[in-house]
Amino acid sequence: MNQTIAVIGGDARYLELIRQLHGLGDVTTIIVGYDKLEQGFTGTKKMDFDDLEPEKLDVVILPITGTKKAGEVEAVFSDQKIYVRREWFERLPYGTVVFTGITNQYLDSMMANAKATLIPLLDRDDVAIYNSIPTAEGTIMMAIEHTDYTIHSSRIIVAGFGRVGNTVANKFSALGAKVSVAASSIKDLARITEMGLQAIPLNNLPDYTEQCDLLINTIPAPVITKEAIQQLPSHALIFDLASKPGGTDFDFAKQRGIKAILARSLPGVVAPKTAGKILADVIIQILNGRKEITP
Amino acid sequence: MNQTIAVIGGDARYLELIRQLHGLGDVTTIIVGYDKLEQGFTGTKKMDFDDLEPEKLDVVILPITGTKKAGEVEAVFSDQKIYVRREWFERLPYGTVVFTGITNQYLDSMMANAKATLIPLLDRDDVAIYNSIPTAEGTIMMAIEHTDYTIHSSRIIVAGFGRVGNTVANKFSALGAKVSVAASSIKDLARITEMGLQAIPLNNLPDYTEQCDLLINTIPAPVITKEAIQQLPSHALIFDLASKPGGTDFDFAKQRGIKAILARSLPGVVAPKTAGKILADVIIQILNGRKEITP
Repeated sequence: MNQTIAVIGGDARYLELIRQLHGLGDVTTIIVGYDKLEQGFTGTKKMDFDDLEPEKLDVVILPITGTKKAGEVEAVFSDQKIYVRREWFERLPYGTVVFTGITNQYLDSMMANAKATLIPLLDRDDVAIYNSIPTAEGTIMMAIEHTDYTIHSSRIIVAGFGRVGNTVANKFSALGAKVSVAASSIKDLARITEMGLQAIPLNNLPDYTEQCDLLINTIPAPVITKEAIQQLPSHALIFDLASKPGGTDFDFAKQRGIKAILARSLPGVVAPKTAGKILADVIIQILNGRKEITP
Repeated sequence: MNQTIAVIGGDARYLELIRQLHGLGDVTTIIVGYDKLEQGFTGTKKMDFDDLEPEKLDVVILPITGTKKAGEVEAVFSDQKIYVRREWFERLPYGTVVFTGITNQYLDSMMANAKATLIPLLDRDDVAIYNSIPTAEGTIMMAIEHTDYTIHSSRIIVAGFGRVGNTVANKFSALGAKVSVAASSIKDLARITEMGLQAIPLNNLPDYTEQCDLLINTIPAPVITKEAIQQLPSHALIFDLASKPGGTDFDFAKQRGIKAILARSLPGVVAPKTAGKILADVIIQILNGRKEITP
């Protein structure tokens, strides 16, 4: 059975995603918000948002960022404003899947009474782990660019041992840095030690920052405190990879003259093709799974 | 016994080198070609070249690049032209050591009848291996910047398994790339295999480039031939790390529309502080060794 997919908005990552949707086989792909893009895609129709008929859509793919507050959708390849509103979502039929990167209050409330199903891709462990690879590579690039010493032999503290922290610690260690990881759970502290890295109980972080060239935060909570920053050597750098507003006391870092950078959306910046493929692979896997279940 | 060291010219790496010379203990350091530099160094005198008395120097440190053809010395922190000529070299006393990064015909001929000893630092295995670390990190930075996919999972061929090739292959492999190394000697091909990488006999390189996203050359000879480039996929990149003019048929790469970059002096660009420390460590080690030998 032919499926109709509407991709509404998106950035450079979505070019690869759209290309990969062919992997699904029998699909019609409609792209909205790509009017400034000169390149074409075989088997794909460009369309204006107002010409879409939501009743006929099997799959809707929103941008990684979901929607803004008023339902505006980010579309970097278009100057047109696209708004997706409650009545539009409610016209989507039962069985339709709406993919977004992240969800928010607006999207959740729009979908509350809709018949379609919302799937926030970045909530999934697999997507988050795959995405942590380009995130770590982007962090490596920043570390090489912003310092006058090598990653090799430098003293790096990673705050957090979740899906991103684990990968970042691994990669910097593989490049010969002396890596410590600050975490809370005894399970994480044991795993960090097993990996041959120094385990730091998160509460004691300020006791360790005196011996640190690069402090990388991955925890979306205020963990890089005044006390932790106070002890850093003056040449140290802070990279904050946690989602906005990060977990660093940026005001205090500035006051101490320590450069602190809130890095945003590194996968889309350093590896849009890989990042698009990661999303496509998971979307294709989910849709193929559904096909098998619903006859 | 107090030693007098003259640092003549140099770039950002030499700031760390000058700082580290204190490690030698009882030294007087004179720096020439640093008049535009605002920062000062404790225990260091700025001087004009013409005010130097070569008869009183125990150590002379020339730039990494040595001299240009007419004896001109590169000094990025000065607008003055500095020329070091035969009569100046010949006034240096017996026992004086002249350090340079690389030597050339001019320097060799200047020193032919001089009493002092010339030591080209980059010829030394230890310096070349230490320097290969920032070179590899600079290559990683370029790979992340210039591609829209991750290093992880990408197919990389390194041509050459010398001091640089070995380190580069190691680091890219540590980041999860699929690394192959092209080399000539059976010893190298065996070691490459032992490391879990794919070994390619250098002569057969063109048979393997069809499956390559990034081709990194480290051999200072024309090994990245038309035949090797012909087979590369159109999205592939070439980084040439071999000293000028590199080992790539750049004209043919351009004709095929394949981006090929001759990377120059990556340690000085990405990690001047580490690169300066590498030089300082070796200079200090050599001079301390001499102190022990000559009473």
